Amino acid sequence: MSTTIDVPESSNVVKGKAVLVAPQRAGGWKKGIAIVDFILRLSAIAASLGAAATMGMSDQTLPFFTQFFQFEASYDSFSAFQFFVITMALVAGYLVLSLPFSIVTIIRPHAPGPRLFLIILDTVFLTLATSSAASAAAIVYLAHNGNQDSNWLAICNQFGDFCAQTSGAVVSSLVAVVALVLLIIMSALALGKH
Amino acid sequence: MSTTIDVPESSNVVKGKAVLVAPQRAGGWKKGIAIVDFILRLSAIAASLGAAATMGMSDQTLPFFTQFFQFEASYDSFSAFQFFVITMALVAGYLVLSLPFSIVTIIRPHAPGPRLFLIILDTVFLTLATSSAASAAAIVYLAHNGNQDSNWLAICNQFGDFCAQTSGAVVSSLVAVVALVLLIIMSALALGKH
Repeated sequence: MSTTIDVPESSNVVKGKAVLVAPQRAGGWKKGIAIVDFILRLSAIAASLGAAATMGMSDQTLPFFTQFFQFEASYDSFSAFQFFVITMALVAGYLVLSLPFSIVTIIRPHAPGPRLFLIILDTVFLTLATSSAASAAAIVYLAHNGNQDSNWLAICNQFGDFCAQTSGAVVSSLVAVVALVLLIIMSALALGKH
Repeated sequence: MSTTIDVPESSNVVKGKAVLVAPQRAGGWKKGIAIVDFILRLSAIAASLGAAATMGMSDQTLPFFTQFFQFEASYDSFSAFQFFVITMALVAGYLVLSLPFSIVTIIRPHAPGPRLFLIILDTVFLTLATSSAASAAAIVYLAHNGNQDSNWLAICNQFGDFCAQTSGAVVSSLVAVVALVLLIIMSALALGKH
């Protein structure tokens, strides 16, 4: 009689364990995403800091001048470039502050809290970074090509070095934008599959 | 003897049911988010279509002309505005195509698949919409204020109607950008809490 009681009990124990083990299995995959997230954040910091520094130091004074003023172009000639420097510095600062949260997702790959926090702030700063990169790109395009209908002449013939520096800064900021898009997609994948 | 066997069995049945019922409880909350998602998509479609149409129809011809040419400004005078029209039409098209997937998330609030699909494409089109809105805003700013250092004169004194139309289109596109940011944040919240 006692043997018939033992059989259902042992099968229940196996079922209970199976439920507890299931979410642990996907751990390696999510941990890998968290590590790639951390590396992408480091490269995005480098790209956005580089963009802010290159734009901030762009400055060119022409070797000739008239009686009244000297010809000079620097980033604070254009408000889009000022916005670019401030925004890229903000994005770099946010990315540095987000590194501890990225480390938390490496240590605890299953906790949705830190990932949720990161994906929401990443989206906000992606919008900020994209808008500053695009507005600076629009000005750089005008500086290179000018515009006939509004009689705005291209200034890159005179200010060649200035144009090269600002173009480089825009390219660097686009790298940061691509990194942020990848960060959001990876966080969404890690949140969605469980 | 038979009574002692019944007690552990009945408690096991209750445990099994509790596990099955738990994920169903949060259903109302996720369904609400899915419905708000659908309404936000409709308003984003209106905003982006309005932006594309307003910019696409912006056109002004001045009432005076010289011997050689007439003064005219339209959206295809500026490549940033051309990019704006194409991008906003693309975003509106994507948002229309995404409506069926939004309906699927209302019917099945717990399936992570459609939400994951929507959040990834939303991120891509958010970047597209933000970049076109920001580059058009940079040009609108220049048209209003001009730039002294590069000798670009403000054209809004002559082309007042053109400037008003393009400014309105930029504001409308920013509404679409805000709607897309909210869509991504809500999808992330629905994916993260379970």
